[in-house]
Amino acid sequence: MLNQSTGLDRLFHALADPARRAMVERLSRGPAPVSELARPLPMSLPAAMQHLGVLEAAGIVRSAKIGRVRTCAIEPEVLSQAEQWINARRIEWERRLDRLGDYLKTLEGEGDGNGSGT
Amino acid sequence: MLNQSTGLDRLFHALADPARRAMVERLSRGPAPVSELARPLPMSLPAAMQHLGVLEAAGIVRSAKIGRVRTCAIEPEVLSQAEQWINARRIEWERRLDRLGDYLKTLEGEGDGNGSGT
Repeated sequence: MLNQSTGLDRLFHALADPARRAMVERLSRGPAPVSELARPLPMSLPAAMQHLGVLEAAGIVRSAKIGRVRTCAIEPEVLSQAEQWINARRIEWERRLDRLGDYLKTLEGEGDGNGSGT
Repeated sequence: MLNQSTGLDRLFHALADPARRAMVERLSRGPAPVSELARPLPMSLPAAMQHLGVLEAAGIVRSAKIGRVRTCAIEPEVLSQAEQWINARRIEWERRLDRLGDYLKTLEGEGDGNGSGT
């Protein structure tokens, strides 16, 4: 539970930056070398590499050096953990609304019952 | 686009803390007074109120004071924005895998064609 918590901390923190989200957006279309990830960003290569480090620490991105080129790829299962957490909250919320709807229907039904009695 | 970016920054940052996620978990089961949100957390009430402030700034939670009690509720549409961003990445990723699969099938087909020729 604590590990899971720390994982989600890192995961959501990693996604809380536009440069890092831009990297994830690019990588969800396929693997890319670091230079290609850094090019569109308004920052130096070392600054981009730091952001990449945050994504790697969170487990969202892995990279491998082949020859002189470091290529990055997304880890979709890790990214999905964040999606699943939010999804679970939405399901709970919707269930609550369903229960509320059922309850209101029950009240309506009781109201009808009383109405026919008077 | 910039506004959207800032919104997602705040949204993901708000979710990157276990105390704030615990509050969102509680509120997805229904509205609650601040005191109830703070009670299970291993921190002072002022510290819990600060976390609540981060959730409110991100738009995930709204609160209203009725008499002497401040009651909080979740804003599911705002929370959904974070889910949608991750969801869009997953869809792109899965499309890429589909295209890759189609491409591999094409190669297989070409292989068969060559095979029958020899």
